[in-house]
Amino acid sequence: MNYQAILDEIYEEIQPELDKGKVADYIPALAAVEKGQFAMSLTLGDGSVYSVGEASKRFSIQSISKVFTFTLALEHYSRELYKRVGVEPSGNPFNSLVQLEYEQGIPRNPFINAGALVVTDALISHYKDEYNTLEAILGFIRRLTENPEIGFDAEVARSEMEHGDRNLSLAHLMKSFGNFENDVHATVMTYFKHCAVEMSTEELSRAFLYLAFGGTDPISGTAFISASKAKRINAVMLTCGHYDASGEFAYHVGLPAKSGVGGGIAAVVPGKMSIAVWSPALNRYGNSHAGTLALEKFTTKTGLSIF
Amino acid sequence: MNYQAILDEIYEEIQPELDKGKVADYIPALAAVEKGQFAMSLTLGDGSVYSVGEASKRFSIQSISKVFTFTLALEHYSRELYKRVGVEPSGNPFNSLVQLEYEQGIPRNPFINAGALVVTDALISHYKDEYNTLEAILGFIRRLTENPEIGFDAEVARSEMEHGDRNLSLAHLMKSFGNFENDVHATVMTYFKHCAVEMSTEELSRAFLYLAFGGTDPISGTAFISASKAKRINAVMLTCGHYDASGEFAYHVGLPAKSGVGGGIAAVVPGKMSIAVWSPALNRYGNSHAGTLALEKFTTKTGLSIF
Amino acid sequence: MNYQAILDEIYEEIQPELDKGKVADYIPALAAVEKGQFAMSLTLGDGSVYSVGEASKRFSIQSISKVFTFTLALEHYSRELYKRVGVEPSGNPFNSLVQLEYEQGIPRNPFINAGALVVTDALISHYKDEYNTLEAILGFIRRLTENPEIGFDAEVARSEMEHGDRNLSLAHLMKSFGNFENDVHATVMTYFKHCAVEMSTEELSRAFLYLAFGGTDPISGTAFISASKAKRINAVMLTCGHYDASGEFAYHVGLPAKSGVGGGIAAVVPGKMSIAVWSPALNRYGNSHAGTLALEKFTTKTGLSIF
Amino acid sequence: MNYQAILDEIYEEIQPELDKGKVADYIPALAAVEKGQFAMSLTLGDGSVYSVGEASKRFSIQSISKVFTFTLALEHYSRELYKRVGVEPSGNPFNSLVQLEYEQGIPRNPFINAGALVVTDALISHYKDEYNTLEAILGFIRRLTENPEIGFDAEVARSEMEHGDRNLSLAHLMKSFGNFENDVHATVMTYFKHCAVEMSTEELSRAFLYLAFGGTDPISGTAFISASKAKRINAVMLTCGHYDASGEFAYHVGLPAKSGVGGGIAAVVPGKMSIAVWSPALNRYGNSHAGTLALEKFTTKTGLSIF
Repeated sequence: MNYQAILDEIYEEIQPELDKGKVADYIPALAAVEKGQFAMSLTLGDGSVYSVGEASKRFSIQSISKVFTFTLALEHYSRELYKRVGVEPSGNPFNSLVQLEYEQGIPRNPFINAGALVVTDALISHYKDEYNTLEAILGFIRRLTENPEIGFDAEVARSEMEHGDRNLSLAHLMKSFGNFENDVHATVMTYFKHCAVEMSTEELSRAFLYLAFGGTDPISGTAFISASKAKRINAVMLTCGHYDASGEFAYHVGLPAKSGVGGGIAAVVPGKMSIAVWSPALNRYGNSHAGTLALEKFTTKTGLSIF
Repeated sequence: MNYQAILDEIYEEIQPELDKGKVADYIPALAAVEKGQFAMSLTLGDGSVYSVGEASKRFSIQSISKVFTFTLALEHYSRELYKRVGVEPSGNPFNSLVQLEYEQGIPRNPFINAGALVVTDALISHYKDEYNTLEAILGFIRRLTENPEIGFDAEVARSEMEHGDRNLSLAHLMKSFGNFENDVHATVMTYFKHCAVEMSTEELSRAFLYLAFGGTDPISGTAFISASKAKRINAVMLTCGHYDASGEFAYHVGLPAKSGVGGGIAAVVPGKMSIAVWSPALNRYGNSHAGTLALEKFTTKTGLSIF
Repeated sequence: MNYQAILDEIYEEIQPELDKGKVADYIPALAAVEKGQFAMSLTLGDGSVYSVGEASKRFSIQSISKVFTFTLALEHYSRELYKRVGVEPSGNPFNSLVQLEYEQGIPRNPFINAGALVVTDALISHYKDEYNTLEAILGFIRRLTENPEIGFDAEVARSEMEHGDRNLSLAHLMKSFGNFENDVHATVMTYFKHCAVEMSTEELSRAFLYLAFGGTDPISGTAFISASKAKRINAVMLTCGHYDASGEFAYHVGLPAKSGVGGGIAAVVPGKMSIAVWSPALNRYGNSHAGTLALEKFTTKTGLSIF
Repeated sequence: MNYQAILDEIYEEIQPELDKGKVADYIPALAAVEKGQFAMSLTLGDGSVYSVGEASKRFSIQSISKVFTFTLALEHYSRELYKRVGVEPSGNPFNSLVQLEYEQGIPRNPFINAGALVVTDALISHYKDEYNTLEAILGFIRRLTENPEIGFDAEVARSEMEHGDRNLSLAHLMKSFGNFENDVHATVMTYFKHCAVEMSTEELSRAFLYLAFGGTDPISGTAFISASKAKRINAVMLTCGHYDASGEFAYHVGLPAKSGVGGGIAAVVPGKMSIAVWSPALNRYGNSHAGTLALEKFTTKTGLSIF
């Protein structure tokens, strides 16, 4: 398939959509990002990369980082992790406390905020403190991308913390149910830091390649996790990767993927490639408006849905 | 792959699991079904069929019928259908009224009871009355299976109705929100009748083949729906096919599938085959205990997960 | 105290409020009632009656009838009744199914719709059929008022039934939890009939006198219920008498009272009198706007709050 | 009436109940309190006091302190306070986040934890910092009782804070909705300190006298609040004073009252007296088991219910 031609086509078709939707505005650092930007990159198993738009421009990956932390936690805890967090879609907006209260402090899945906080808490317990934890998360992303330059924007993290009451509320609630082990403030801060990691679509599509190839990066040959775990992470991305619009996304796009409020989405075509797309304006569910459409166009044009 | 050998292996391994779980007992007709029974059938695109266990014994397909009615409604209403029912996982037990009340009578998806009732209601509006509707549903299943003998157990349907207060409650609630068009009693009765359709795993695996092959039965060559709709039905099965355990099922099995409280599960391997399994004892989520495990073994042994 | 002067004062002051709010419009028979009407009557223990406005004009008492049915059910079942219905405020709009589902089909109190349906169901079980039940309810109201003419508007009841899906939904839901004994349709119809009883404020203030005087009508001397039960009914009116605005009503008015969507409110000043007020336009909680204000003015002017 | 004789009678009758129920055990300081203790005091408008049991022994008043803070906040903010907290019963357990989330961070009433936290926050805003606030609260209680010795147990407050995640969660949640003005940690700590005030039943019955006499202490003659506000505080105690058992309490006891998990209950007989009772073992709703029964016996024996 001529992937470059397909990307070029999508790039042209998507232009009228770039100004639709609304950039995340709950923190100044994200609100300042200009609408109208777009990038899309594919990385294939043989290492070839196809891109359109601002594919080397870094953006805040936000919730996409939850895939990396979930991978690490699954590696360290295996089945034990599921005593603390489930793998079911939540059926409620991504930051809802309702379900958490009815379900005794066990979040539905690792991709809603509560679940990702528990995952970060579990990593801090494993790595003993929050500095080591952040090191481990960054180290993992750097190994995935073979790029030691990847870091996070401390200003974004600090700004998130200033508006972090909802997440602090979630963490204290889970602690009241006994499902939180470390200091609430330090853990939430670590969570905001890994959400503030900055990557480009080129980097992100490379980083997700291990999930398309059974846990092993086909370029470097590094085995990050088992094939069975890779498949399961893909399954959780498909059912829970897009907050309250996961069903819609599976329905329209048909690929395991994870979105972030920074406007990024990283997707996986099992056995073939990984795809990253970025456009900062969000639809009403908090997912990139143009990014979602671009991926839908991609699977329609290529037939590469998993269904 | 030697599918027969794989099925034989699964059959042997599954024996200790057949008595675990609990047969659905809310109506006498289902409660009377003996535990310990098991059947599994694959139908490939070339028409070859592999089976183990009581593969020609019919059982009550129950909620699996919702896939057939959703297909028909999607065919007749297309996008219009989504004004009345969503495609999001529900995050609540399958018969919950809570979400329905908060969401103004629009059920989350066509596979929870409320959603399937709306789909049946939409079909009755299309076919003008409930007799025609049931005819159309049965006709569709008979064409899918090329078997004019398939019917429903009127005794099961009548017995469901006697314990049908929860579904009557759901239907009246949706009617109070303006999302129900026909007589509540007649519509719920029609719903129970199509849930009471009886099929064997051989028949069911044949019936689902259109979803594995882009909407067209590869054996008869009949095009039932468009490829795009077939993919989308698969997506909804993956995210919503197993009540409150849809995430778990995607995580462990990794195939689009729909289960019923009669103990059946029908699954799809896109582009390759469809699979039906039956074992009447259910796990705590209302899905066949041994059936779920058998499918998990199948994807583990064959690597045929969609992820 | 010069009650007539106080009523006259209230009558004058309330004029600008009579057109505020909105007449109940979910059924044509209620929607047709003209705004701007007002009546208020006090009946004292010595039989003296003071009125202003259209005090002999009958209106649909609607939910006020729930006080009569609760009294009868308490008389027949005593503590046994509390296995089926509680006495706690609901904290949710009056027709919510949410709490009912979480609390296994046991309504919070006898004055929300679900609770009143259970009470009607319990009365039908006691009186053996719905005709006898309606006879008993009407007979009770006629004895309370010493007025054999009081009846219900069959047209209103029929019209309610045509829009009765929410109540049918509640009844079927309770039946699915085992908390409903009689035919759903017939019971809901009986419920609508007793809600369609028509009384004037003169009649209503007389009818509630037994609750102000320890269960015994001080005029006729008839003992209807024990003093202890009368006090308890007053307590339930205070905490639960006004749907989701019961706290507000207790806060501003400070009297046990029950309102109906027909615009009536009946209140009790223990040991002194009962008061009925009517004005059809409702506030956003479904209680008479001018009626609530008139009662607030009354307790402010007289100091006759229970607090 | 011979109040001493009535108290003596209650004291004797209540003995078999003193060991029933369970002392609050979520913090060590409260868990260490011995079951089996009991005290009850009445203070009349003329200053006469009647007591039984350990009426001069101080205990942790806990949530009873919410009446004092609500009084102060109502005095400083008047109607403005109701933009931040309602006066409706909650219909959910006392620390539920569910309602708070659905209702945009506005607590139902000032006596559930969320509401009392908002009240404390409002007081800190008024008094500018938390030290002044605590001074003001203690000063108010000391003036009410004419007793400068009343203070709080810092150890109890510190211990509460160590188990304070649920309250921290509530406070952060309200802050995320914009309904919290001061530092969460400092405010919650202040809340725990005023909950840790220690009083005997003698002191508590004296302290509540202003609510029985239109806002003015009839002994000292000090006017603390207006008659209208006093009545309204009584109304809120009646509808919301006992968590999820407020309806039951109104039903069985029939007096405005507030309970605390320390086992205390303070009640008001408007125009006559105030009553305090203490027995540390709690019923399943978190209210003193023997204390509730003792008050029920009191209103039964004296007929002094407000209904």
